[in-house]
Amino acid sequence: MTLSANLVERVLAGETRAMARMMSYAESTRAEHRTQLADIYGHAGKAHLVGLTGVPGSGKSTLVRSMTLALREQGKRVGIVAVDPSSPFSGGAILGDRVRMADLATDDGVFIRSLATRGSLGGLARAALDTADVLDAAGFDVVLIETVGVGQDEVDIATAAHTVIVVSAPGLGDGIQAIKAGVLEIADMHVVSKCDRPDANKTVSDLKAMLGLGLTGRGPSKWEVPVIPTSAETGEGVETLVETIGAHSEHLRASGELVERQRKIAEMRVLKTAEDIVRERIEAERNGGLGPLLEKTASREMDPLTAAHKLLRDLKLES
Amino acid sequence: MTLSANLVERVLAGETRAMARMMSYAESTRAEHRTQLADIYGHAGKAHLVGLTGVPGSGKSTLVRSMTLALREQGKRVGIVAVDPSSPFSGGAILGDRVRMADLATDDGVFIRSLATRGSLGGLARAALDTADVLDAAGFDVVLIETVGVGQDEVDIATAAHTVIVVSAPGLGDGIQAIKAGVLEIADMHVVSKCDRPDANKTVSDLKAMLGLGLTGRGPSKWEVPVIPTSAETGEGVETLVETIGAHSEHLRASGELVERQRKIAEMRVLKTAEDIVRERIEAERNGGLGPLLEKTASREMDPLTAAHKLLRDLKLES
Repeated sequence: MTLSANLVERVLAGETRAMARMMSYAESTRAEHRTQLADIYGHAGKAHLVGLTGVPGSGKSTLVRSMTLALREQGKRVGIVAVDPSSPFSGGAILGDRVRMADLATDDGVFIRSLATRGSLGGLARAALDTADVLDAAGFDVVLIETVGVGQDEVDIATAAHTVIVVSAPGLGDGIQAIKAGVLEIADMHVVSKCDRPDANKTVSDLKAMLGLGLTGRGPSKWEVPVIPTSAETGEGVETLVETIGAHSEHLRASGELVERQRKIAEMRVLKTAEDIVRERIEAERNGGLGPLLEKTASREMDPLTAAHKLLRDLKLES
Repeated sequence: MTLSANLVERVLAGETRAMARMMSYAESTRAEHRTQLADIYGHAGKAHLVGLTGVPGSGKSTLVRSMTLALREQGKRVGIVAVDPSSPFSGGAILGDRVRMADLATDDGVFIRSLATRGSLGGLARAALDTADVLDAAGFDVVLIETVGVGQDEVDIATAAHTVIVVSAPGLGDGIQAIKAGVLEIADMHVVSKCDRPDANKTVSDLKAMLGLGLTGRGPSKWEVPVIPTSAETGEGVETLVETIGAHSEHLRASGELVERQRKIAEMRVLKTAEDIVRERIEAERNGGLGPLLEKTASREMDPLTAAHKLLRDLKLES
């Protein structure tokens, strides 16, 4: 208990090693680890969470890097949570990308954490948001959460941010990858990366045309979703983007939508956590009494629905 | 009961309208619909399921079309389940793509079904496999399941096929998009699409180099994972691919791995179904007694873990 209290206090004091340990608890299944994260939760809630999503190759990571540098110039402390397996922050990208990120790693106003996305992804959304809480509680002003914009878990994570940015790159497929993945409607702002490329204008105008169809952001309050061209080469647009995030944050506060959004995020987190608890109990049966049920299902003597109900009854999750 | 029996019988007779209705049940949450699909399950198990996965733009859909035409020439009946939101089969692609697919739609030896991937994706894996069962029970010889290779749900769906094909296109990002998404290890075979392009050789050799590191397929039996270059332009490789699928099917049977794989698929389906049942009960509370819990969680008076346990106790899913 004292140790546990100490760890929470050390996180609140912004101690790097304590933060790293607490973040590892976000990916743990042990009850005592979860309990400590629950303690952190009550101390979080001050940071501005920014979700960035887009298909692999859309330039999210490069953008995260430029945004971080711009935010650091404003004196903001920046946490980065990378859930995208193609992100250099997550270790999925080629060496050159990782080297370009190295300057961030030596700045103690920046904390980078990547989450595993292999294996069972069940608790991914929960783990990402618990990780963001640790950064938040440790006093980081802005937390950037990078996810790949395909797959419901990833979309859920992005949606749990205060400001959601959908990143598109010119020349990838038909140019509006966001729409393909069904994430257009979750964007508070669109970024077109690599805008130094000649085909970027088409991507910008395609997005504007889509937005012209009447989409005005995902909240009830009036916020015009902007399309911001950026370039990692020339630095164009990054300052505008960071200012727009500030404006959006202010808009959420002034319109009262922040409260509504926080309620939605809380709802998502409670439901995901409840699902995770149950899923873990069910999956624990993989090595338990599931055998005979599976034999019958594999041979098609029993159907999966009947088998699932039987499993839930055996686990006393159903009467 | 009579009506229900009739619908199952009509599906078994391959009646198109009955199949479409039964497939719509796969996306339904109504208990009586699920029960009918459970009846179908016992009649399925004969078709060879082929999962195709790869990032958007990798050319999966074009490949599905070519494979379907090649399989039709062998006299095989082909079902297509599209779970990829960027697939022209799912309605996500631009008009030209859809027109190119139109010739398949008029062939009654081909049945195409797309699944929604928007909104709550909870039951997506279950719905996709239930849909494949309908095609299987209706006598389709091969069922091609197209998913986008990012997101655990999508990877789960692909893994539930007998033969898993990972599709990569030259020139997309670093050329080995499969690895990025963490799906290299699930491939029974790799396809490099657009092999008429000059940079395709690099993608082929990159993949072969990765495979040379000792990966030999996902099963316990010895199967050398091939890398097959294909081109929709020249038709190259499609016949080889279809033959290789046949060889893999034969290999699974002869080595006894088919039984093992079917057991794993059954396990996945039972666990997913159980999770879906519980998730639906939990989500039903969105409009129920969840309100006060959420207020406290949103204001950070209560943490999500405590709230989740309270919710599960209220639902009698936990004591």
